[in-house]
Amino acid sequence: MLPIVSIVGKSGSGKTTLLEKVVAELTGKGYRIATIKHDVHGFEIDYEGKDSWRHKKAGAKTVVLSGPDKIAVIKEADEEWEPSSLAFSFAQDADIVITEGYKKAGFQKIEVIRKAKSTIPICRKDKNLIAIASDMRFKCRDVPCIDINNAKAIANLIEDRFLRKKTSNKNLGRTGLTVNGKRITLKPFIDELLAEAIIGMIRSLKGCSSSKDIEIRIKT
Amino acid sequence: MLPIVSIVGKSGSGKTTLLEKVVAELTGKGYRIATIKHDVHGFEIDYEGKDSWRHKKAGAKTVVLSGPDKIAVIKEADEEWEPSSLAFSFAQDADIVITEGYKKAGFQKIEVIRKAKSTIPICRKDKNLIAIASDMRFKCRDVPCIDINNAKAIANLIEDRFLRKKTSNKNLGRTGLTVNGKRITLKPFIDELLAEAIIGMIRSLKGCSSSKDIEIRIKT
Repeated sequence: MLPIVSIVGKSGSGKTTLLEKVVAELTGKGYRIATIKHDVHGFEIDYEGKDSWRHKKAGAKTVVLSGPDKIAVIKEADEEWEPSSLAFSFAQDADIVITEGYKKAGFQKIEVIRKAKSTIPICRKDKNLIAIASDMRFKCRDVPCIDINNAKAIANLIEDRFLRKKTSNKNLGRTGLTVNGKRITLKPFIDELLAEAIIGMIRSLKGCSSSKDIEIRIKT
Repeated sequence: MLPIVSIVGKSGSGKTTLLEKVVAELTGKGYRIATIKHDVHGFEIDYEGKDSWRHKKAGAKTVVLSGPDKIAVIKEADEEWEPSSLAFSFAQDADIVITEGYKKAGFQKIEVIRKAKSTIPICRKDKNLIAIASDMRFKCRDVPCIDINNAKAIANLIEDRFLRKKTSNKNLGRTGLTVNGKRITLKPFIDELLAEAIIGMIRSLKGCSSSKDIEIRIKT
């Protein structure tokens, strides 16, 4: 399963700056990073007159731009998608997803606290808090407090927790299953059974003898 | 399978304008439309200083923005994705995908020809050409030539060809299978076998008794 870690903190605490530095560190180590930015109040990405804007304005629910080196997708959402659904749909090729925001979601998180903005951790009672990044020193249970400018130490912590374990992570599940748009958590036995049954069926198909990444979509 | 139809034509012939009108007509009929714009020379979507730009600049291969009413994804691509892969990955919730461009791809297509730009259909030899939209009159095999301003007629043609057939489209395949990033075309028997086997396995899982839309991802 794709690991997800969140960088959270009050508005203006420096989440984007820290995320940038951490992404650069981890990319430098050779990992493929995906990021999810939670824009509670909405965002603008395409502008009046642009072709993508024109497609959207005409009523398209999904607009895809495809170029030689990148893809952009703008998609209408009837309701806010959960980070795990976003990661599943759009970031399967990443080693880890780092979110900016989602302080209330149940992912392991690093809180950014900048003296000028606040002096109390908002996640102090959150059992998923794995580190504090701050320009102050905090004692918060046994959660490590790292210098806000020490992105290297934070990247190392993420690597140790989420990326080095890869080989022993096998038991976390091989089969990502979504039914009617909802992610289904599978017990290890069922997970293994489904994966093996499907891999077995696919393997015999032409051109599928060495399937490393299988994606199936069925509408009933 | 999700139908894909392409609006093609020379640069400046009015593809975007026609697509806009056709999308508006079909949306008005209650269909969910996805569009794919082929930007051969690349495109810009996020701008210096924006958070998405900062994430990308730092090295993130995929950046997702998630707001209350829309999602945006910007994804690095090692090579250009085919429209069918784009549709499979990003537009499964649509009734039809309309592309702007992809004149060389094997999808059924409508060519836009504007007298001021050209007088020869570029797809005149393409067996997938299903209509010409023009401000001139063309005789090109038995391909209908529709007034470029008559978006309603073009929308009706798309509806007749791709959307009304839905019930009889069952045999076109239920199982969308991608292996190692490549779309696999299945023979009807295999398609049915895979779909039924997987639906059967999933049905017995908790919360999955009425699975309408199943998505599975396996990494081996």
